[in-house]
Amino acid sequence: MHMYDILNRKRLGKALSREEIEYFVQGCTTGDIPDYQLSALLMAICIQGMNQEETAWLTMAMARSGEMADLSHIPGVKVDKHSTGGVGDKITLVAAPLAAACGVTVAKMSGRGLGYTGGTIDKLESIPGFTTQLPPETFADIAGTVGVCIVSQSGELAPADKKLYALRDVTATVESLPLIASSIMSKKLAAGNDCIVLDVKTGDGAFMKTLEDSRALARAMVSIGTRAGKPTAALITDMNRPLGMAVGNALEVEEACRVLCGEGPEDVRRLSIEVAAAMAWLAQKAPDMETARTLAAEKLRDGSARERMEEMIRRQGGDPKVVRHPEGLPQGRAKRQILAASSGWLGAMDTQGIGRCSVLLGAGRETKESSLDYGAGIRFAKTLGDSVKQGEVLATVYASTDSMAEEGAKALEKCLKITETQPELPPLFYDWITEEHEKRP
Amino acid sequence: MHMYDILNRKRLGKALSREEIEYFVQGCTTGDIPDYQLSALLMAICIQGMNQEETAWLTMAMARSGEMADLSHIPGVKVDKHSTGGVGDKITLVAAPLAAACGVTVAKMSGRGLGYTGGTIDKLESIPGFTTQLPPETFADIAGTVGVCIVSQSGELAPADKKLYALRDVTATVESLPLIASSIMSKKLAAGNDCIVLDVKTGDGAFMKTLEDSRALARAMVSIGTRAGKPTAALITDMNRPLGMAVGNALEVEEACRVLCGEGPEDVRRLSIEVAAAMAWLAQKAPDMETARTLAAEKLRDGSARERMEEMIRRQGGDPKVVRHPEGLPQGRAKRQILAASSGWLGAMDTQGIGRCSVLLGAGRETKESSLDYGAGIRFAKTLGDSVKQGEVLATVYASTDSMAEEGAKALEKCLKITETQPELPPLFYDWITEEHEKRP
Repeated sequence: MHMYDILNRKRLGKALSREEIEYFVQGCTTGDIPDYQLSALLMAICIQGMNQEETAWLTMAMARSGEMADLSHIPGVKVDKHSTGGVGDKITLVAAPLAAACGVTVAKMSGRGLGYTGGTIDKLESIPGFTTQLPPETFADIAGTVGVCIVSQSGELAPADKKLYALRDVTATVESLPLIASSIMSKKLAAGNDCIVLDVKTGDGAFMKTLEDSRALARAMVSIGTRAGKPTAALITDMNRPLGMAVGNALEVEEACRVLCGEGPEDVRRLSIEVAAAMAWLAQKAPDMETARTLAAEKLRDGSARERMEEMIRRQGGDPKVVRHPEGLPQGRAKRQILAASSGWLGAMDTQGIGRCSVLLGAGRETKESSLDYGAGIRFAKTLGDSVKQGEVLATVYASTDSMAEEGAKALEKCLKITETQPELPPLFYDWITEEHEKRP
Repeated sequence: MHMYDILNRKRLGKALSREEIEYFVQGCTTGDIPDYQLSALLMAICIQGMNQEETAWLTMAMARSGEMADLSHIPGVKVDKHSTGGVGDKITLVAAPLAAACGVTVAKMSGRGLGYTGGTIDKLESIPGFTTQLPPETFADIAGTVGVCIVSQSGELAPADKKLYALRDVTATVESLPLIASSIMSKKLAAGNDCIVLDVKTGDGAFMKTLEDSRALARAMVSIGTRAGKPTAALITDMNRPLGMAVGNALEVEEACRVLCGEGPEDVRRLSIEVAAAMAWLAQKAPDMETARTLAAEKLRDGSARERMEEMIRRQGGDPKVVRHPEGLPQGRAKRQILAASSGWLGAMDTQGIGRCSVLLGAGRETKESSLDYGAGIRFAKTLGDSVKQGEVLATVYASTDSMAEEGAKALEKCLKITETQPELPPLFYDWITEEHEKRP
């Protein structure tokens, strides 16, 4: 087999065979294929595309390019949950213990945040004492007994994806549906779970800005998971506003805990139930989605999910009391309020802008090396569609210094638009995509 | 300016600006742009194409990436002639002295052959004593006084083209009309002539196999030359059979000399007159092509062209007597005849196969480092469309050893097909392409 022929076929828009795809992924991993051939192939794939079979083969080859996590010794059906990234997205913090309460095993490896998108590991680490680095045996033990354990990725999952992503980043070949889908899914397949629930965000605060693109990405990822023998479902959810009323690590943990205690904002509650229900349905803990939704709602109502969260925090080194008494969480010393300049409705929120504000405040990372301020962030008093009176508080920002709070508040003000008429609200979620495409489970 | 943006624009199929093209060609020449970005861009260009303006800018930027030959101190209108490469193509050896006899100045830098395509420099060097490496002053003096001088390229013309070509060669991005046209024309522009006549071959023995592709390449090159301020004309000629009756370095010199002496095959004579006439017409030595053809035919008939050839050989160190007495040229010691296995017509010639036979016999190079046998090659007794009788000689092969002659003869036999019906002959040439497109000059 020759890389030249593979390049030539893809240049002409032809489909590559499984052997050809495995050949170049292996050559990428070993370094035998030079970067200039890989980057030319990535450009050809980007322009000419890949069909579903090719995309699945690429994903599996990248997944197998490094260590494959083996969770088979952990009892139960292990279900992973992945979000394509949004602002204020703390759904994992609620859905994971909730799914555990429904009988699912959540043995999850998670990532840190970069840019305006937060990461579950950063959020959990804002709980004093909580550790996300555990020996494999402890991880397996907690997941097996509590039903939920969340750790940061150890070792290198899918090194071929890492190398190809670095090349895409410098050759303008990031924007390719098969390459985006296979990059996400290669790490999910390497993480060793039995089933996968995907939360694909859509809107101005998401990676995919249009519903059409988000649907296409969801379909591509569900197709990959299914072809790899992992039951996969994707929910398309709105990111034209932040999720819930809090953005920032400790602030989001606090909000998630409130939801687990039966309070908190309705959107976080509804979406968490939906995601946990899908996890339970894929793990066959309920015969259909409707029953799974009822089960999840009940496990949230009766405190079972809260107990799983408390137990997970305790077993991972934190103080479980924060769940009911979140005052123990860090909070930025400097704060500023944003007041409504006029009366009307909160008619539009620049979600990506809000995410950037949280980075300015210290709640997110500019680069991989940046440090985080767990107490920084934004607490909203109003959200999209709420009526406001002139002088009312719209939001409060938290930071470690007055100047950062000042800068963040100024930037945030520009992201909130008051309108004279009540805006139409986008739905919270749009569609479930499963292997039969767009059938609501 | 950023390479990332350039890559992104071309990925999306947008046209690049002159500044963007000059930026990446310069970065390629200096080595500031890494190969993995250049190869990704070449792939994007290959798939998305380039318009005529972009192609002309690319060509000029590559031409200016190294030394630009300055022929301004040589008197007269300097006209270059270039062939895209064929089998048995010795047209330069006749047309160059013939154009000189018509008043054109031919101060030509030429290349060596590679693969099944011969090179003018190799052919001339088969003349004992002939040197193609001359000091610039001697080159200018011979060109200025004799009207024709042919040397091998000294220094490095268009180094950016050389680097990009090397990358195209290993990334399956050779087959791109704008990249092929700009690669050829960048070296022509750097060679410093005032006008350019292109002989674009078409057919199974040519780089471009179809008339449509050959026309498109001719149009692209004429457009580039015109935009660069160099009057350019392209003739599309047939390569579904070898040119003339000889293939191989010394054998082709011999045939060219016969034509200069008023003998030799009709196709070589006609095409040489056509090319020399276009050179004279572009140099304004004749008011129109019809007058130029008459002038060239007369200069061939009256011996003026032969005298220029003799004088050029004498001034470049060879013995001018070879023109009238080619017995002095080297000829392979071992020979084999190919006989007709049946009676009928020579109905088809595998021209590319014949080119490969000549490489097997030692007349061409497998790689740049291979040495040549000047006396090796093929002398045809019959050509396409001739009637043949069983047992008649079709061709004789020449090589330095019996085993090479044997191998070459066996391979050649497979390239010659005898048919029971007379074949339809393709025309010798199809069209002239000038700046107004397809107007016969």
